[in-house]
Amino acid sequence: MIKVGVVGGTGYTGVELLRLLTGHPETELVVITSRTEAGKPVADLFPNLRGSLELAFSEPDIEQLCTCELVFFATPNGTAMGMTPQLLEAGVRVIDLAADFRLRQADLWQQWYGMPHACPQLLEQAVYGLPEVNRAAIAQARLVANPGCYPTAVQLGFLPLLEAGLVNADQLIADAKSGVSGAGRKAATGSLLCEASENFKAYGVAGHRHLPEIRQGLAAASGAPVGLTFVAHLTPMIRGIHATLYAQLQDTAEDLQVLFESRYRDEPFVDVLPAGAHPETRSVRGANHCRIAVHRPQQGNTVVVLAVIDNLVKGAAGQALQNMNIMFGFQEQAGLADIALLP
Amino acid sequence: MIKVGVVGGTGYTGVELLRLLTGHPETELVVITSRTEAGKPVADLFPNLRGSLELAFSEPDIEQLCTCELVFFATPNGTAMGMTPQLLEAGVRVIDLAADFRLRQADLWQQWYGMPHACPQLLEQAVYGLPEVNRAAIAQARLVANPGCYPTAVQLGFLPLLEAGLVNADQLIADAKSGVSGAGRKAATGSLLCEASENFKAYGVAGHRHLPEIRQGLAAASGAPVGLTFVAHLTPMIRGIHATLYAQLQDTAEDLQVLFESRYRDEPFVDVLPAGAHPETRSVRGANHCRIAVHRPQQGNTVVVLAVIDNLVKGAAGQALQNMNIMFGFQEQAGLADIALLP
Amino acid sequence: MIKVGVVGGTGYTGVELLRLLTGHPETELVVITSRTEAGKPVADLFPNLRGSLELAFSEPDIEQLCTCELVFFATPNGTAMGMTPQLLEAGVRVIDLAADFRLRQADLWQQWYGMPHACPQLLEQAVYGLPEVNRAAIAQARLVANPGCYPTAVQLGFLPLLEAGLVNADQLIADAKSGVSGAGRKAATGSLLCEASENFKAYGVAGHRHLPEIRQGLAAASGAPVGLTFVAHLTPMIRGIHATLYAQLQDTAEDLQVLFESRYRDEPFVDVLPAGAHPETRSVRGANHCRIAVHRPQQGNTVVVLAVIDNLVKGAAGQALQNMNIMFGFQEQAGLADIALLP
Amino acid sequence: MIKVGVVGGTGYTGVELLRLLTGHPETELVVITSRTEAGKPVADLFPNLRGSLELAFSEPDIEQLCTCELVFFATPNGTAMGMTPQLLEAGVRVIDLAADFRLRQADLWQQWYGMPHACPQLLEQAVYGLPEVNRAAIAQARLVANPGCYPTAVQLGFLPLLEAGLVNADQLIADAKSGVSGAGRKAATGSLLCEASENFKAYGVAGHRHLPEIRQGLAAASGAPVGLTFVAHLTPMIRGIHATLYAQLQDTAEDLQVLFESRYRDEPFVDVLPAGAHPETRSVRGANHCRIAVHRPQQGNTVVVLAVIDNLVKGAAGQALQNMNIMFGFQEQAGLADIALLP
Repeated sequence: MIKVGVVGGTGYTGVELLRLLTGHPETELVVITSRTEAGKPVADLFPNLRGSLELAFSEPDIEQLCTCELVFFATPNGTAMGMTPQLLEAGVRVIDLAADFRLRQADLWQQWYGMPHACPQLLEQAVYGLPEVNRAAIAQARLVANPGCYPTAVQLGFLPLLEAGLVNADQLIADAKSGVSGAGRKAATGSLLCEASENFKAYGVAGHRHLPEIRQGLAAASGAPVGLTFVAHLTPMIRGIHATLYAQLQDTAEDLQVLFESRYRDEPFVDVLPAGAHPETRSVRGANHCRIAVHRPQQGNTVVVLAVIDNLVKGAAGQALQNMNIMFGFQEQAGLADIALLP
Repeated sequence: MIKVGVVGGTGYTGVELLRLLTGHPETELVVITSRTEAGKPVADLFPNLRGSLELAFSEPDIEQLCTCELVFFATPNGTAMGMTPQLLEAGVRVIDLAADFRLRQADLWQQWYGMPHACPQLLEQAVYGLPEVNRAAIAQARLVANPGCYPTAVQLGFLPLLEAGLVNADQLIADAKSGVSGAGRKAATGSLLCEASENFKAYGVAGHRHLPEIRQGLAAASGAPVGLTFVAHLTPMIRGIHATLYAQLQDTAEDLQVLFESRYRDEPFVDVLPAGAHPETRSVRGANHCRIAVHRPQQGNTVVVLAVIDNLVKGAAGQALQNMNIMFGFQEQAGLADIALLP
Repeated sequence: MIKVGVVGGTGYTGVELLRLLTGHPETELVVITSRTEAGKPVADLFPNLRGSLELAFSEPDIEQLCTCELVFFATPNGTAMGMTPQLLEAGVRVIDLAADFRLRQADLWQQWYGMPHACPQLLEQAVYGLPEVNRAAIAQARLVANPGCYPTAVQLGFLPLLEAGLVNADQLIADAKSGVSGAGRKAATGSLLCEASENFKAYGVAGHRHLPEIRQGLAAASGAPVGLTFVAHLTPMIRGIHATLYAQLQDTAEDLQVLFESRYRDEPFVDVLPAGAHPETRSVRGANHCRIAVHRPQQGNTVVVLAVIDNLVKGAAGQALQNMNIMFGFQEQAGLADIALLP
Repeated sequence: MIKVGVVGGTGYTGVELLRLLTGHPETELVVITSRTEAGKPVADLFPNLRGSLELAFSEPDIEQLCTCELVFFATPNGTAMGMTPQLLEAGVRVIDLAADFRLRQADLWQQWYGMPHACPQLLEQAVYGLPEVNRAAIAQARLVANPGCYPTAVQLGFLPLLEAGLVNADQLIADAKSGVSGAGRKAATGSLLCEASENFKAYGVAGHRHLPEIRQGLAAASGAPVGLTFVAHLTPMIRGIHATLYAQLQDTAEDLQVLFESRYRDEPFVDVLPAGAHPETRSVRGANHCRIAVHRPQQGNTVVVLAVIDNLVKGAAGQALQNMNIMFGFQEQAGLADIALLP
């Protein structure tokens, strides 16, 4: 049983983290901070937690957080990097669900996130928390950068192909679609039901913040920089990401189905579907799984990978718990046994 | 650990029952029957169950079912009454999620369901499975009639008022709204996304099958027949029922908030919200709770009760598990700890 | 051909008004004002208008507005009453789509809208713009108070019963459901897709601002004050209101179907459905019709009326055009011939 | 004023065609046939048409259809080819909204549609009804094959690039997303609200029937066969197609924005958005427009085109009317002036 704290629990990633932590057998949630909601019972903001979580939000207080063994940041970009050095110094381990520690280069971070990095010296020790790639490092990590939602789906889909060197890494295309919860709980006109429902659109085609994160991960898998076109779309639903990935095969002799199944055979949260299948986002709604199918339409040179996750679970809070489980030696699936809610 | 079987697991009530049973600590699911899908792995039909449930559908086989200690019927109306006598005789206990054993009078059943009742002799021993009313009888029951979705919400909302004799029982109004999953998984034009989304309508105003069931329950609470107008509506979402109930107060001195809180103080799955609150269906999505608020607008004579449930959980499969827990002496909340998925 | 101006065109009522005015054969839209969006082409905010409307928003300018023959206010409550006196003085006629001139008593307005009325002297000459009640007065009016969305549906549903004195006017119940566009285009957390979709809830049960407006209209029809319980609900869709109305019959001999059909025989925008029908909100999406059905379930004493409108059309912008048509002697259906979009 | 008939008016393409024809100034709709619904007033099936269309469905009757100057087929694939020869012989012109006459090769048709073609001799005279490509031929045509919904959006997006020879035509990728109305009004499990809402998935990756149609059109534009990967997805909304198109530039010096604007300058229904824009499907809901934006992310070699249409309008019934207008010398925009419904 470890004591955990959550900084910033008022967004969708936050409430999902609280839901999952409440059901986790090895954690005691001792503090949830929010400057704006301090004093308000958490269940007043999130009525699903009524009766399950008695805590109230409190003002962020570094001393109190230092009594925890682990602190999650479910804050806007730029917040975690301000408090993390003190926590690490006090021996508290940290998982940041925002982007502060995802990029290894401080200047790249500044370029994409529009502010200087507050603790570039920590970037080297921060471990990128994609267990399917970095499990051993995560186990030892004091600071984990939890991956973004799009980057999780896109990397899991491309990894087997790139690691095996089967595709032209200069011409990767990721066409990704996200539910609206990816935009967070802030009151923005574009996220209103009347703007976002019964509507479909692309956004950020010129350059999305997840692009450098994905490139960094794919380059590591590939062993060299990659050429990636990434287009994000907003789809009128609450949860779910569907990544449709395209690449040009350099070798069409390989059995792609076998390749994917081998790559993920021992992964508890990656499910390779049978040949010919089309994964549905609802099959992972509320669950920590990534379901993947690989196709080669018309037996041509283009490989198409379909990967789905719940952006708030495997794409955020669930993956954070998975990382925690690995860091603290808990069973990797602890607290993550939920079956997707269908219908 | 008991062995349980499910007859008819291909509808939404069925998949929800399978999801919940898969997570229950005291049950072993040994058989799921479906005439139409026999031989197909359950997870092929319901991709959320992939990796969690390995069973395939099988042809209904009374001998196999007789090896269970409990059989659930998640079948269309009229099926359970054909097989139940044999099962009971073999010592198997039965929970029917359809309507076959809900009405105590066989002729009334025939009038509303359009076929003669196959085993009217069992109606007397069947226990109506609303734990908040019949907990003791359920514990002893061999045959439980699991309540309908609307009847659960409407009865839980009206009960405190009727039991206390505070309202005019001749003029009750229940205006209820249901998500589309209440119509089941059968391919019907009216349930298509293009017909039912971005649309709201009433249906069955002339007479809905749940009317006699609700009347029977309210009459029992009231001690006399009641006058009830019940209007059902289809609302464009998947899960959830919201019942808005109206009654004329005969005594305006009573503190209704206190009344409701006292009535449900010891109920693990009924949550009376603070005065002035408006329950939301999403606060119980995937959870077995009924959340209720009671209002007296403008301090007038009309009391307004708002009650929400998930029609597939407290309105069907969850309540069935709750009944099982009571029947077999398990902890009443076993397997029902899920927190609602929000957002 | 008349010159018209629109003050405040950045909300949903505004864009709908612009869409309809763009298609109206007798109007020239000369100015659309918005303090926040001044200078921006209207089509940048509302991409559906690209190619159909070349105007840009401009700063509100009373002199420019005075060049119009008619000015619509599609502003928040409290704005129209500040500019209307000057416009009327200049001979400009005014239709206010907000609530400023709907209540005949200034003190009641202050009580419900939380500010003193700026020009109570105009309340007497303001005509309540429900053509089915006040057509003759509207034709002569210089200032029309366009009805609220809920009040339109609820009044049209109750009128035949109250005018005929058939029901107990002390015990009226209006259970109304609205799409989310009724909450407007402002960025509010509760209107986010992730909060409002897949969810159903009541709101404002203690007292909704449309209550006094409805009461005022029903009292006029009834010839005496009425007792009304009004509960509004949010339903997860963009457009549409469904009012389910309940009243106790004092005379059960009357043929209600005939009553409703006679009352609305000559109304171009009220459609009484055949006996037994259930109107659907989608049958009026984008159209100016109100469709109504009347039921007497189980031949009891309770009459149930079902009325649907598009809250942005017959509940706002469409009714405003209808009022304009009447005021200026245009054909009442001019610019309002759109057939509802289905599916 | 011409007399027109509609064969098969019970699907979504049918009701949209009826809505548009009802508002068209130059047509008189004299017959709507449906075997299954013969005798039923059209408005009973489609309540939006109540009061606007008095016709009832009738049994298909070739003699009656021969009294028309134009017959539309809004039937399943394979029906139009059975009746078209007789109609043409009688001097009736035909627009088929299904696929019967879209492919120029009968054997290819048989391969993809699973039945032999009934009148291959007509394939040569059938004109593919994409006005932006074949306007002159359409004007002379006796038989028009109305394009599919995906093919319309994909072709309009790729045409300027292919006609100008700017991209590698061997490596085209079309990632397309459609609302559920594309699947039609037939009662299929996969189109239920509870299956298709809150869900996103690809389908038909191995080979979609629109693939050969798109290839044929792109090859014509390119002057040589093309290599195309086409992936269709189902997005949880009623109307709309969003095509995201990817191609590798062979020449990066060309100003793509200028290219697209020039190509479509005189097209009444193709709207090229300003540089950097992201078209939304709702901006064309109910309207006959295609809105397009062209991007070159990160100034790389990959061009990304975004194209949106309403699948039932520009992707079906609206384009059919546009073709009719061209065939009969009406104003091309007649009956197609509707502004998209937003929100």
